[in-house]
Amino acid sequence: MNYPNGQQRLAINNVVRKKDNRMFSNRGMSLEDDINVTNEFYLETNQAVIHKKPTPVQIVNVHYPKRSAAVITEAYFKQASTTDYNGVYKGKHIDFEAKETKNKTSFPLANIHEHQINHMQKVIDQQGICFMLIRFTAHDETYLLDARALLIFWNLKQSGGKKSIPYDMIKNQSQLIPFHYQKRVDYLTAVDKLYF
Amino acid sequence: MNYPNGQQRLAINNVVRKKDNRMFSNRGMSLEDDINVTNEFYLETNQAVIHKKPTPVQIVNVHYPKRSAAVITEAYFKQASTTDYNGVYKGKHIDFEAKETKNKTSFPLANIHEHQINHMQKVIDQQGICFMLIRFTAHDETYLLDARALLIFWNLKQSGGKKSIPYDMIKNQSQLIPFHYQKRVDYLTAVDKLYF
Repeated sequence: MNYPNGQQRLAINNVVRKKDNRMFSNRGMSLEDDINVTNEFYLETNQAVIHKKPTPVQIVNVHYPKRSAAVITEAYFKQASTTDYNGVYKGKHIDFEAKETKNKTSFPLANIHEHQINHMQKVIDQQGICFMLIRFTAHDETYLLDARALLIFWNLKQSGGKKSIPYDMIKNQSQLIPFHYQKRVDYLTAVDKLYF
Repeated sequence: MNYPNGQQRLAINNVVRKKDNRMFSNRGMSLEDDINVTNEFYLETNQAVIHKKPTPVQIVNVHYPKRSAAVITEAYFKQASTTDYNGVYKGKHIDFEAKETKNKTSFPLANIHEHQINHMQKVIDQQGICFMLIRFTAHDETYLLDARALLIFWNLKQSGGKKSIPYDMIKNQSQLIPFHYQKRVDYLTAVDKLYF
């Protein structure tokens, strides 16, 4: 099967790992791509309405040619003031950030910005469901870490503690996200376990 | 008092409209500006976490000059696939669109795109709180119309009915949004009445 990035994929399914039934692994596709595919599937099957927010851009100049679409000719990337993904699931507000790391033994907290932490705290205060999806590409594993746990590690770091969360601790404190072909990062399964 | 747009403002307060106590009116500032000010106030006072989504842009070319920020040199506006505003309030997902009209007697449904209607239907199906803020600039009034009511008018239009919602009907079917200096479109007051 050909994927958008042109890669041929081998296949390892979580459920069946039979020799002759090589299924699809996460390897090759970015976490963002996988989440987008998953959100699309959730949307089409009426399971949840969750979207990635557009990249915030400061538009400075726009050219309006005759008989064709407006062209932005000067713009700059702005820092996002929130997390990247949000939406609604069973009436509850869902809010999350997604990060992947090549690090095998820990997740570096430098991956997260302070404004994202502040946003997460505010979402928690409003009783929203808030978490981070962390992919360890080397292990081909994606975890859901509740934002309250993330905040503990962040605050420890701020008071001189470790600058990263050890892989083993994430393994213990988080939900491993199951992989399915159509729900490549089936995080709602983990959300159901943790929050409902 | 000087406002960002340089206008000096007169003042009409909802609470007191004494002759010598002219307070702040909505006139002059756009609905979007007013909502942004209000959301900022909600955020700072821990009442709700609601943001406007960034304008979706298709980035085609980026220039990376030495020693300065990346410049987007070619990009195009994309059509949004959702409403403009969302967030969390008391654990519930809030989702809305905001439109203003100069029309005095009705709100033209041409202001709304079909994909926004589809999105609203999906949010309702997920039990999110979904509505539209409609400002009649000529009346200096802003209303909150529940998305389920909006969908009725939309479906009537699709089956050959009126192409707009009469002002009187909006007056009857919607919540008038109170105006306060810091909460210029204090829609949470209406949300409390309608949904909690």
